[in-house]
Amino acid sequence: MTGAGQDGSNVSIALVHYPVYDKNRQVVATAVTNLDLHDIARAARTFGLFRYYVVTPVAEQRDLAERITGHWREGWGATYNPKRKAALDLVKVVNSLEAVLHEIEQLFGRPAKVVVTGARDRGGTVSAPVLAELLRDRTQPYLLLFGTGWGLADELFGRADYILDPIRGTGTYNHLSVRSAAAILLDRLLGER
Amino acid sequence: MTGAGQDGSNVSIALVHYPVYDKNRQVVATAVTNLDLHDIARAARTFGLFRYYVVTPVAEQRDLAERITGHWREGWGATYNPKRKAALDLVKVVNSLEAVLHEIEQLFGRPAKVVVTGARDRGGTVSAPVLAELLRDRTQPYLLLFGTGWGLADELFGRADYILDPIRGTGTYNHLSVRSAAAILLDRLLGER
Repeated sequence: MTGAGQDGSNVSIALVHYPVYDKNRQVVATAVTNLDLHDIARAARTFGLFRYYVVTPVAEQRDLAERITGHWREGWGATYNPKRKAALDLVKVVNSLEAVLHEIEQLFGRPAKVVVTGARDRGGTVSAPVLAELLRDRTQPYLLLFGTGWGLADELFGRADYILDPIRGTGTYNHLSVRSAAAILLDRLLGER
Repeated sequence: MTGAGQDGSNVSIALVHYPVYDKNRQVVATAVTNLDLHDIARAARTFGLFRYYVVTPVAEQRDLAERITGHWREGWGATYNPKRKAALDLVKVVNSLEAVLHEIEQLFGRPAKVVVTGARDRGGTVSAPVLAELLRDRTQPYLLLFGTGWGLADELFGRADYILDPIRGTGTYNHLSVRSAAAILLDRLLGER
C-alpha cells in the first residue's frame, strides 16, 4: 500500500526546460510542448496536486505555454472541454526554479523540500514508499522536479533534499517519456492501490 | 510489492482506435497520434512487453502509423536514435482486434486472456496486484486493451476475460491521457518497487 489515495495538496510538480541536457550532454533550454502541458496537468489534477509549474527562462516559450493553457482555461475552450480547464488551471508558467521556490515559501510559510527525479541510478536515493510517508505531513510543501530533454542538469541534483529512486523496468531500457515517468511516480507516491 | 520487476514477455498491449466513444458517446474510429505511438512503445519496452499492437480499421491510419514507426525503425532514424528504434520495434499495426488475437494464439499456441481497461467504475473488476500474480504464468498470453478517444466501446467489456480496476485519484477527476494510464498500469502490473 503506497500513498493510499492521499491527496497531494502539499505537493507541486515542476517541469524544467532549463538547465537540462541534450542528446550530447550539453546544457540547453528545451522547447515547451503541448502534450507535456496536457498530460502532466491531467495527472497532477488526478492526484490532487497543489500546482504544476512549467519552468523556462525563454520568454517566447513562456508566452507559448500561456497561450496553450489560456485557450483551454478561458472562453470557448473552457466551455468546450471543462476537464481540460480543470487540469490546466493547475499550471503556472514561471521563468526559474527560484521563482517556484519563492512562491511556495510565500504560500505555505516554509520552504519546499525539493525532490529530484531522473532515469539514472545514483547513490543516496529515497524510495517511493518512504517518500510517500513523508508527503503525509501536509504542513510541509514538496516540489517534485522533472526534466525535459535528456534529463535535469547535475547542478539540480546537488541542491535536492531528496533524489527519488529511478523507475526500473525489466531490463536496461530506461527511456520513458517525461509524461509517462511523471504519471508513474505520482501514482507511486499518491495513488490508491 | 506488485509485480516485483518480472518481465512482461507474455503480455501485449493493444491501443484500440475503433470501436471507441467520442465526446458524445458515439462509436467512432479515432486518429492515430504520434505521441501515442512513442510514449506507449517506450513504456512497453521498459516493462518488457511482448508486443504493442496499434489497432485501426482505417487503412490510411495504418499507413500513417507504419510511416511514423518506419522512420525510426529503419535508415536514418534508427541510427540517429536507437532508443526509439528499440521501443518502436515492438509496434505492430493491425486492422482489428481479431487479427491481434489470431496472431497471439498462433505464436503462443493458446488464446490470449483479454484484459480491458477503462476510467469508469464497474462491477466485477480485478485489482492490479491480483492480475500481476496471474501474469506470472508465462505460458498464458495476456492482452491489455486501452481505448483512445473517450474510451473503449462497451462491447469490448463484454468480451473481456478480466476488467482491470480503474485508476483512482484523490477526487472524482479521472481524465488521465491514455499514455499516462498505460504507463501507470504497466508499472502497477510489472514494475519493480
